[in-house]
Amino acid sequence: MINVGIIGGSGYTGVELLRLLLPRNDVHVSFISSRANADTRVDAMFSSLRGFTDLSFSDPENIVASDCDLVFFATPNGTAMNQAPALLKQGVKVVDLSADYRIKDVAVWEKWYGMTHTSPELIDQAVYGLPEIHRAQVASANLVANPGCYPTTVQLGFMPLLENDLVDAGSLIADAKSGVTGAGRGANVATLLAEAGDNFKAYGVAGHRHLPEIEQGLNQMTSQDVSLTFAPHLLPMIRGIHSTLYARLKKPTDLQALFEERYKDEFFVDVLPAGVFPETRSVRGTNMCRLSVCQPQDRDTVVVMSVEDNLVKGAAGQAVQNMNLMLGLDETAGLALPAMLP
Amino acid sequence: MINVGIIGGSGYTGVELLRLLLPRNDVHVSFISSRANADTRVDAMFSSLRGFTDLSFSDPENIVASDCDLVFFATPNGTAMNQAPALLKQGVKVVDLSADYRIKDVAVWEKWYGMTHTSPELIDQAVYGLPEIHRAQVASANLVANPGCYPTTVQLGFMPLLENDLVDAGSLIADAKSGVTGAGRGANVATLLAEAGDNFKAYGVAGHRHLPEIEQGLNQMTSQDVSLTFAPHLLPMIRGIHSTLYARLKKPTDLQALFEERYKDEFFVDVLPAGVFPETRSVRGTNMCRLSVCQPQDRDTVVVMSVEDNLVKGAAGQAVQNMNLMLGLDETAGLALPAMLP
Amino acid sequence: MINVGIIGGSGYTGVELLRLLLPRNDVHVSFISSRANADTRVDAMFSSLRGFTDLSFSDPENIVASDCDLVFFATPNGTAMNQAPALLKQGVKVVDLSADYRIKDVAVWEKWYGMTHTSPELIDQAVYGLPEIHRAQVASANLVANPGCYPTTVQLGFMPLLENDLVDAGSLIADAKSGVTGAGRGANVATLLAEAGDNFKAYGVAGHRHLPEIEQGLNQMTSQDVSLTFAPHLLPMIRGIHSTLYARLKKPTDLQALFEERYKDEFFVDVLPAGVFPETRSVRGTNMCRLSVCQPQDRDTVVVMSVEDNLVKGAAGQAVQNMNLMLGLDETAGLALPAMLP
Amino acid sequence: MINVGIIGGSGYTGVELLRLLLPRNDVHVSFISSRANADTRVDAMFSSLRGFTDLSFSDPENIVASDCDLVFFATPNGTAMNQAPALLKQGVKVVDLSADYRIKDVAVWEKWYGMTHTSPELIDQAVYGLPEIHRAQVASANLVANPGCYPTTVQLGFMPLLENDLVDAGSLIADAKSGVTGAGRGANVATLLAEAGDNFKAYGVAGHRHLPEIEQGLNQMTSQDVSLTFAPHLLPMIRGIHSTLYARLKKPTDLQALFEERYKDEFFVDVLPAGVFPETRSVRGTNMCRLSVCQPQDRDTVVVMSVEDNLVKGAAGQAVQNMNLMLGLDETAGLALPAMLP
Repeated sequence: MINVGIIGGSGYTGVELLRLLLPRNDVHVSFISSRANADTRVDAMFSSLRGFTDLSFSDPENIVASDCDLVFFATPNGTAMNQAPALLKQGVKVVDLSADYRIKDVAVWEKWYGMTHTSPELIDQAVYGLPEIHRAQVASANLVANPGCYPTTVQLGFMPLLENDLVDAGSLIADAKSGVTGAGRGANVATLLAEAGDNFKAYGVAGHRHLPEIEQGLNQMTSQDVSLTFAPHLLPMIRGIHSTLYARLKKPTDLQALFEERYKDEFFVDVLPAGVFPETRSVRGTNMCRLSVCQPQDRDTVVVMSVEDNLVKGAAGQAVQNMNLMLGLDETAGLALPAMLP
Repeated sequence: MINVGIIGGSGYTGVELLRLLLPRNDVHVSFISSRANADTRVDAMFSSLRGFTDLSFSDPENIVASDCDLVFFATPNGTAMNQAPALLKQGVKVVDLSADYRIKDVAVWEKWYGMTHTSPELIDQAVYGLPEIHRAQVASANLVANPGCYPTTVQLGFMPLLENDLVDAGSLIADAKSGVTGAGRGANVATLLAEAGDNFKAYGVAGHRHLPEIEQGLNQMTSQDVSLTFAPHLLPMIRGIHSTLYARLKKPTDLQALFEERYKDEFFVDVLPAGVFPETRSVRGTNMCRLSVCQPQDRDTVVVMSVEDNLVKGAAGQAVQNMNLMLGLDETAGLALPAMLP
Repeated sequence: MINVGIIGGSGYTGVELLRLLLPRNDVHVSFISSRANADTRVDAMFSSLRGFTDLSFSDPENIVASDCDLVFFATPNGTAMNQAPALLKQGVKVVDLSADYRIKDVAVWEKWYGMTHTSPELIDQAVYGLPEIHRAQVASANLVANPGCYPTTVQLGFMPLLENDLVDAGSLIADAKSGVTGAGRGANVATLLAEAGDNFKAYGVAGHRHLPEIEQGLNQMTSQDVSLTFAPHLLPMIRGIHSTLYARLKKPTDLQALFEERYKDEFFVDVLPAGVFPETRSVRGTNMCRLSVCQPQDRDTVVVMSVEDNLVKGAAGQAVQNMNLMLGLDETAGLALPAMLP
Repeated sequence: MINVGIIGGSGYTGVELLRLLLPRNDVHVSFISSRANADTRVDAMFSSLRGFTDLSFSDPENIVASDCDLVFFATPNGTAMNQAPALLKQGVKVVDLSADYRIKDVAVWEKWYGMTHTSPELIDQAVYGLPEIHRAQVASANLVANPGCYPTTVQLGFMPLLENDLVDAGSLIADAKSGVTGAGRGANVATLLAEAGDNFKAYGVAGHRHLPEIEQGLNQMTSQDVSLTFAPHLLPMIRGIHSTLYARLKKPTDLQALFEERYKDEFFVDVLPAGVFPETRSVRGTNMCRLSVCQPQDRDTVVVMSVEDNLVKGAAGQAVQNMNLMLGLDETAGLALPAMLP
């Protein structure tokens, strides 16, 4: 039996980790911490879990993580960088769902996140947990930086094009749309149903923290200098990200074959048949990313559509996928269920 | 030109008052106050109002209300009872959209609202602003207690039955459902789109503050002792209340004729044809209450369905209707537009 | 390996059966039929199932059901009554998700469904598939009439009260609210997002086909004559039913203890702690029914709140639960996963 | 009093025309036709209009349009081209909300719409009714081709950039998102709440009928050859279009000043302050288009965000704006109300 712990579990990624882990027979959740909700039963906050656990939230001061095989950080940015070092020294593997170890250039990280990094020495050994690129490194990692929600869809969508140097990397565009769970479970006027419901708008177009993370990833795929225009939008729905990607083709290619070939062995990336476009509900609750590629009017702009559930492949599901790899389990364990549709 | 002011205007009833008042040629909004948003342009917070006003929110300390003909309180409970007395002394009429003057029995009010009333001497002169019952008193009132959102639908729905002593008043049931704007514009986890969207639940069934207000109103309609079971629910939508009312008939009656006759002269109450049930969107953005009555299977339980827009007939619209009456204007001025459907 | 077939599988209950059955190792879906979609791949219509099946819809003329252990009818009313007799003769067990065998009095059925029943001789042997009442009979049945969506919530909610003769059965009220999947997947103006979204209304209050089904079930629980007022409403959401039930108490009782005791051994019925009310999302995608009971103001009206996912416990999930029982499997097989929340 | 008629009025643009026209004192709606709904009261189909009209839908065979000053076609494509010629000969002005007269090149129109045009001789005299470009021509026109919903947002958003030759017109991108009313009121599985709700997807990326209309309009603004990639998406909401536009800047410009100057005299186009992005609800129910422009990271891609209510500025509202101009009325008559927010 594998023992895992969850630090910072009262948000949406915390409950989502529990939804994915509690039904498993091979994994035991030892603790889930939340300072604000210490001693509250988890199923009193999330009634969906009634019957699946007797856990209460632990005060972070009282947790004993040393006998865990792996710990997830589902904390706000700036927490894991303080607590991960001690865990790693104790031999506990770490998957950090926050952004603390995603950016390799610490100066860039500090600029975008407005903090001084307290464990910069770990950044190099942290593996960026996008298994479709870094599977081998994840499997041998002790510390995995779980990718952001938008970055997962954008990187998987551009990857076949950039790896094969087929598009102009200097003028990429990602028009991304996310459900409101991307904003977390905090009390917030902007994501009230009365504000975000029956409404649609862009935000963060002038500069969003996921921009440097995405550009770092894309730069690793090509020798060109990458420049991305990234425009996130807020969808009036709960889960799901749809990224629509635009790039200028440099030469004619069989795009459909390219994408199918690139992802033919990837369980969690599904290239749709030509002419079929993905919809977010087709991945709701699952760890899938579904992709389509097309070339409208046979002109030189290629359009890629990429969908995921932001709480699963965009957060907790990918974290479990990484955990499976790090612990030598079947990569798809606990993650191979169809989406709930409708 | 009539001058009005709005105290406490940064919530949904405040912006709704502006939406209804700003296009009018006969009314001028002198000020709208909000301590937290003082000096912020109103249209910076509510972009829907761009082009219709140059007002900024005023600090409540700086407003001069004495030259207003009428002031609206769109404040939380417990504010109007402190500030209304001075305004009334200055000859300013007051419409209070909060609950401060709704309950005639001050002990009952203090129990349900958990405060000591600071101007109980005004409660008697305050007129309960449901024009369909108290039109004449409203017209001559200086202080109007604007009804709650649920109470408006429930009272209008039961009124014809109770006024004619047709049902057993001792076992009334109101199963009421409200859109989330009823909970206000405060930051609140429970009304996030991610929490309240795609979801439905009851709340406050064990005791809701609107219960004593409704029972007071119903008791004025009948010599029987009224006992009401009131079960409010939260709808995954923005605006609208639907109250489904149940009562036991004491004798056979032509219910359709009864309702049509009772409301035949009421502009804002619309009795639908027999067999047609009301939908909330048919009153969206308007001051209408639409009603249906039926007697399933010809048994002895009568069912009344009553819908309104909780922010209009349930709050700001009824407040304007009361203002119109108090100032001798046409009761429907500024309120006679069709609903936006779809 | 158990072989099952699905007749009439292109609607929401069909795809939901597949979602629940395809991941199982102990069950094999031999065929799924749909005349209109014959030869279309199932995952071309429901992209959520990509990767889980290579099935195409079969023409009903071409299916071979005789080697199935069990066949589900997910057809419109009036189909199973024609085809079930032949299957039963071949030794194939049948779970009918339509209404054909739910009503014991064939005259009542014919009146409400507007058809002549073509296999009335089977009605007697058909077991009404609410396992919480008829578990033993289901286990030995060859033909199970799977309950309707509303009837499941209403019967489970009233059962403890009626079995113990605690309420006046002559004046029961069920105010029920359903998501739009209850109306099926047919093209229909009334359930367009542009019509049913951001809207709420009652329908069928004068007479709904689930009324006789519910009254039949409630009558079996008590020696009193049951009379129910049943008012269904359409919720602006996809899945979920919330029934709010009202009855007059005849004597004081510890209602919380009563409900907890009645359901203490039922895996799929969860009685919430006193004072906590159920929400539909807490059962989304699962076979659970969650219940609360309360007695507002200690008066004599008891209120029960009952939620389910209309496509699971209200249809496909309960059908699988019945299948499990009929085939001697663990009753919870394939059904013990937590709800997706948020 | 001005007399107008509406041909083909049972869809969303028909009821929206009525919502805008019925409250006016200067306009009388003589008839509204609908073959399928002939003799049905308009307010029986659209309960929002109860109290505002006694009209019933007319059979198209029975209408007398000759005494109308102006007739609106709210018909499917292919109807106006047959009926407009006779009306024009009778001296009746026409605003066609369908696509029949939008495309100047009849071969292009016939290719995209799959029909033979039956009155191509009128195409030249038809004025494309985007008043912000063609105000003078609209004012003197007898036949106005009302723009499509997407084309209005895209043309208004690109116009200042193209008119001043500031961007590369050969690689324009419009990532557009529309609420479901854009798909009309027909019974359709794809726009059921159960299908389109809580979901997001692209459609028509390979080729949408609005592409040639938009490119025609953009080509009139610049001497460059225009090439547009147009990707429409379906939003899980009722009303509203948000177009996010991308273009490569050819030289540095004060974009904010450019947009403000271009639209400073346009009542229905509102350029938001720098750094503020538009949201669809800010124009819900109104004839406004709100725009923002920004240049992320000071790179050479400019991003324009453009929102409208697809049924108002994208259809019925713009039709009324055109009517006002054609009949010499105040351009804003009946259209100057704030949006309903929330």
